[in-house]
Amino acid sequence: MNRHHYGLILAGGRGTRFWPRSRKRSAKQVLNVVGKRSLIQATVDRLTPLISPERLWVLTNHHLRDIIIKQLPEIPRNQILAEPMQRNTAPAIGLAAQILHSLDPDAVMGVFPSDHVIGKIPQYRAVIRAAFKHTAGRHLVVVGIQPRWPETGYGYIEFPRGCAAGCAQALPVRHFHEKPELPKAKRYFKAGNFFWNSGMFFWRADVLLEQLRLHVPRTATVLASLPPFGSRTFTARLKQAFPLCDDISIDYAVLEKATGVYGIAAGDFGWNDVGSWNAVYELLDRDPQGNSIALESIVIDSHNNFVDARGKVVALIGVKDLIVVDTPDALLVAARDRAQQVGDIVKALEQRNRHDLL
Amino acid sequence: MNRHHYGLILAGGRGTRFWPRSRKRSAKQVLNVVGKRSLIQATVDRLTPLISPERLWVLTNHHLRDIIIKQLPEIPRNQILAEPMQRNTAPAIGLAAQILHSLDPDAVMGVFPSDHVIGKIPQYRAVIRAAFKHTAGRHLVVVGIQPRWPETGYGYIEFPRGCAAGCAQALPVRHFHEKPELPKAKRYFKAGNFFWNSGMFFWRADVLLEQLRLHVPRTATVLASLPPFGSRTFTARLKQAFPLCDDISIDYAVLEKATGVYGIAAGDFGWNDVGSWNAVYELLDRDPQGNSIALESIVIDSHNNFVDARGKVVALIGVKDLIVVDTPDALLVAARDRAQQVGDIVKALEQRNRHDLL
Repeated sequence: MNRHHYGLILAGGRGTRFWPRSRKRSAKQVLNVVGKRSLIQATVDRLTPLISPERLWVLTNHHLRDIIIKQLPEIPRNQILAEPMQRNTAPAIGLAAQILHSLDPDAVMGVFPSDHVIGKIPQYRAVIRAAFKHTAGRHLVVVGIQPRWPETGYGYIEFPRGCAAGCAQALPVRHFHEKPELPKAKRYFKAGNFFWNSGMFFWRADVLLEQLRLHVPRTATVLASLPPFGSRTFTARLKQAFPLCDDISIDYAVLEKATGVYGIAAGDFGWNDVGSWNAVYELLDRDPQGNSIALESIVIDSHNNFVDARGKVVALIGVKDLIVVDTPDALLVAARDRAQQVGDIVKALEQRNRHDLL
Repeated sequence: MNRHHYGLILAGGRGTRFWPRSRKRSAKQVLNVVGKRSLIQATVDRLTPLISPERLWVLTNHHLRDIIIKQLPEIPRNQILAEPMQRNTAPAIGLAAQILHSLDPDAVMGVFPSDHVIGKIPQYRAVIRAAFKHTAGRHLVVVGIQPRWPETGYGYIEFPRGCAAGCAQALPVRHFHEKPELPKAKRYFKAGNFFWNSGMFFWRADVLLEQLRLHVPRTATVLASLPPFGSRTFTARLKQAFPLCDDISIDYAVLEKATGVYGIAAGDFGWNDVGSWNAVYELLDRDPQGNSIALESIVIDSHNNFVDARGKVVALIGVKDLIVVDTPDALLVAARDRAQQVGDIVKALEQRNRHDLL
């Protein structure tokens, strides 16, 4: 462990594709969709051997702060911050950089999503160690993951031609590419030097602040104007100032523009962004008929179904490839290959002002 | 109304194919699966213009007696009887005949299932009036319904060749036929003189008792040995005696053997025995996509589904021809064409001793 290494866990997302279990106050990252720990708890569990909990920070929103404080008692509660309003990742990461730099001028921060699953923890930790190491050259360091299929749902990082997966060294990043259409995704997949963008970033806080001043000067100025973290007026001033920041992702704001961005071209460490109920189904153990369902349920001629109906016996007869998620006030029944559309249900509920179900 | 006309409503069945809504204490006949009244309430509603509630009797079991008393406050509660144990229809109807005959030597009884749906009430009442009328000739009178398709799930009544549907007169019944295989059902359907057995029977109580003495003498003797209905010892003696009765249906015990059985060859009066959730689906109004589902639910690309999930918003995405029935402790998801197999779920629960769900 290096006492200048900090972790920033981004936990402001909603994860609407996990409705009806995900709600504003129980977003994807605080759900235990795979295993007994929530996704954010699992994130902390795998980070703490590298970064002690006193140097972990969480950025979330006011709907989720209380449950995250409860789920992560090891993290000092004043390091679990609620953004005053929903802003994209550039202001959020900038805010954390501002605070960390004020507390430790040599602070190096790793930025971690709170809602991913990692299958191979030792390999994951090796990647993080390598990434932290390469921040010493004042580089912005990203992590690419060797693609396992031509996924259209992820951004890609383009490395120099002929690069091989491995985390021994950081390579200069040639380009960032947005989520591609399938033909392009297939070309990326074939090329060998295109890697999935993991959403993990590593840099010195002062380097990041410098980059913000260069590329999003308004945001940099707003953040620099804040009183010291922990001071009496900090929260009130943040509430006034934060809405003035640019609503832009760190990728657009900095990474795609900056020079000297390096990346770890990582091999497979079992990374999964768990983008839908179908991804959960793929991750879980299944019975010989391919069903993921509670043991006490009754299954007749039914195959490849995912059922999450806690405290209830479920009977299936002659159905296949379904997602069934039951909660006390809402029930979802969807075809597995339509799992991406669960977010549309949330939009429909918003249109109907069904705030009780959001 | 004729003061010697009585109605016996048979309400001892379980209706396991309506699990998870049907349970021992909330069997099909006390559920409001179609409309706001339960099936037994609807049965009484359509009978009372013909038979006053003081002359209606209900035979059920001890699990259901309380709820039936609650649902049918217009029927004197001492006329809502619980059989001491599950026996078939011959002892049940015999018991009622014994009691009615003791109270009114000229009693004529109509026997009615408690869990059917009737679409055309005026036509139904005309049939009942005709059937009662024909009991005057000391006949056993049954009601056949003109088949609308070659159903394999019902018994058939064979009338003389060339008969036409209508209730003006009772015709001699040639034979009763059990539920046929499909080729036979198709022949019956084509023949024109085979009618569905509605399970409604009409006869003088004394005539029925005579028939029981002839064909199931042990049952007749046991019933004749009971003390007068309403006497102090009646219930205790019934409890001892009832198990000695033959466990046999009235069809096997009497109708298939007796001579002089007559039938009304009735036209379509919207009769439906509501044999499964799919039958409920067929009876209910549906949206333009063919879904029977609460208005507040959210439906995306989903067709011909039946959803019963009270007090809950249900979201469907890309699913079709499903039955979804939700209750606080159990959830059923079945293909519509497998609705008949819901009873197998109940059997499985019995094997697992899940009495909490039965």
